[in-house]
Amino acid sequence: MDGAGLLALSTRRQKQVDAVLARFFSLAKNRATAMGPQYVRLWQELEANTVGGKRFRPRMVMAAYQSLGGTDTETAAYVGAAFELLHTALIVHDDVIDRDFSRRGVPNIAGSYRDLATGRGASQRVAEHAGISAAVIAGDLALFNAYRLIDRSGVSSVTRARLLEVMDDALFASAAGELIDVDFANLPEVPRVDDILTMERLKTAVYTFECPLQAGAILAGASDEVVATLGDFGRDIGIAYQIIDDLLGVFGLEAETGKTTLGDLREGKRTVLIAYATSTSAWDSVAHLFGSPELTEADAGLLREVLTGCGARAFAEGLARYYTNRALARLAEPHIPPALRGELHPVADAVLGRVK
Amino acid sequence: MDGAGLLALSTRRQKQVDAVLARFFSLAKNRATAMGPQYVRLWQELEANTVGGKRFRPRMVMAAYQSLGGTDTETAAYVGAAFELLHTALIVHDDVIDRDFSRRGVPNIAGSYRDLATGRGASQRVAEHAGISAAVIAGDLALFNAYRLIDRSGVSSVTRARLLEVMDDALFASAAGELIDVDFANLPEVPRVDDILTMERLKTAVYTFECPLQAGAILAGASDEVVATLGDFGRDIGIAYQIIDDLLGVFGLEAETGKTTLGDLREGKRTVLIAYATSTSAWDSVAHLFGSPELTEADAGLLREVLTGCGARAFAEGLARYYTNRALARLAEPHIPPALRGELHPVADAVLGRVK
Repeated sequence: MDGAGLLALSTRRQKQVDAVLARFFSLAKNRATAMGPQYVRLWQELEANTVGGKRFRPRMVMAAYQSLGGTDTETAAYVGAAFELLHTALIVHDDVIDRDFSRRGVPNIAGSYRDLATGRGASQRVAEHAGISAAVIAGDLALFNAYRLIDRSGVSSVTRARLLEVMDDALFASAAGELIDVDFANLPEVPRVDDILTMERLKTAVYTFECPLQAGAILAGASDEVVATLGDFGRDIGIAYQIIDDLLGVFGLEAETGKTTLGDLREGKRTVLIAYATSTSAWDSVAHLFGSPELTEADAGLLREVLTGCGARAFAEGLARYYTNRALARLAEPHIPPALRGELHPVADAVLGRVK
Repeated sequence: MDGAGLLALSTRRQKQVDAVLARFFSLAKNRATAMGPQYVRLWQELEANTVGGKRFRPRMVMAAYQSLGGTDTETAAYVGAAFELLHTALIVHDDVIDRDFSRRGVPNIAGSYRDLATGRGASQRVAEHAGISAAVIAGDLALFNAYRLIDRSGVSSVTRARLLEVMDDALFASAAGELIDVDFANLPEVPRVDDILTMERLKTAVYTFECPLQAGAILAGASDEVVATLGDFGRDIGIAYQIIDDLLGVFGLEAETGKTTLGDLREGKRTVLIAYATSTSAWDSVAHLFGSPELTEADAGLLREVLTGCGARAFAEGLARYYTNRALARLAEPHIPPALRGELHPVADAVLGRVK
């Protein structure tokens, strides 16, 4: 399939997933009316925080499913939507943990409820509390219904049990990763490269790549061998994706990534880049700037220079390329059908292409 | 059955539920070892926050199940354990919302992680953040696995679907109630009695009484009529329970309830008691004390006097009696088997008996 064909396919899949989610939220909002307008509003906020994404995880489900011969795209869209809801739940609660009131410059659920309370004259403390509370509740609803959507996708009970196991794996890993991430932030020293990679894999890559790809394959009735290989591919490409994400968080263009490239440096985010840099003597000259909430553009420029000069940037890029190559090697295995290879090769290219 | 017989039965049921939960946590901890000791620790903390309770919800499931002729107590214990995990999830996240670091005088998950971080020399802000983060994650795991335990209880797919719907109802209602509760706390005026009852019912009574009783009945293959009546019984007795809980929060003996009777008054908790009192002129003389974080024992004594003198206490007691009577009337309906009546009558008596 050529680029235009892939794009059209991707748009079609996204629309199907959007339709499932629209129906799900419409039912939930109807049901919520019996419990008062403020509950309907919470569901609206949750919906607003679910739509508009890139539908990355559903696309992984459907790519695996269709290229392995699956034709019931409606059911695959259901399973994809379930992973999208899981994603929403995890980012909503991640924001609770970080006490963030916006995501990519837009108020998130906590921010929206905080602003609402402020508008009614509440103090900042009270307003923030109202915001965080709504986000805790909304995340719970999304999480629970992620499971529920798979349960109600209409698949056979054997397939359902396997899909639920995959989703269980996704949450189990993500919770572990989140916990390690919180621990990292409180450590005095920067963790080792491999510990950072493990954390990033558990927290995000498992539920973003490995599990959705495996779910799509299971749904298509693929062999255990194919399911396992997709897990391996997802694992490697997921790690590559995270490394690139961290690179973009420092070197990316704000206009392209939608997030400020000062954020990670101000926050003192411990990434592979930083782990490498701190092992070099060049770091000493800028260590005091890293993690400073008052970091200026000029400070960031200095940090970027050192991160490049000491080899950290090239190291991280090399690591991302290594994991991408590993992922591609999986696709070359003989039991991977050409159609699946044709779908996933562009995914791997796109991951690396983000730092071109 | 006499009192001793009921007690023995109740102990037996509790043991079965405890065994299911012990197995569940043992598996989870084993699985968590692959992801590091800190993750095993989180599961241990979650387990510690699940054991030791009165197993109230599982007992409702099993009481309905066995007195409606069910004999597979192992499966019923599974379903009961699922409701216990749901309960854990909800209180853990409720504590996140309230930024509470202890429950009934003992550190909860957030408190335990906060203390751990403090012990390592973290600042209060950092330590509290570590605590809240762990609690968000642990609550997510408990919530997800509540669903999963029902899913894995081994019942037929028709029964499973109905049980999952009941659990869905439980969370859907509880989230609505929690949201209304947060709203209440931020309102300048005290809400009306009926709004308070609705909130308390949604937040707690539905998942504590209505849904577990209905789940037990469904599991026993009871008729829709019996399931519906159990829902009605659970609704009324659940409301009565909440009213009594609020009475005990002000007038109870600390030694018996395990919580301080200053807490609700200091916090300014809006209960039926307070809603009634604020409608009387007697309230004006003590209104300034209510909700004051510096409330003394003497102030509390004054508030209690006014709450009694203005008729609020008698009103709340009367209301609890009314809902208990309504609940008992449901049990008298002809389609309720004598064994079920014999199980639930003592439950209703016990609810009222708490304010004897």
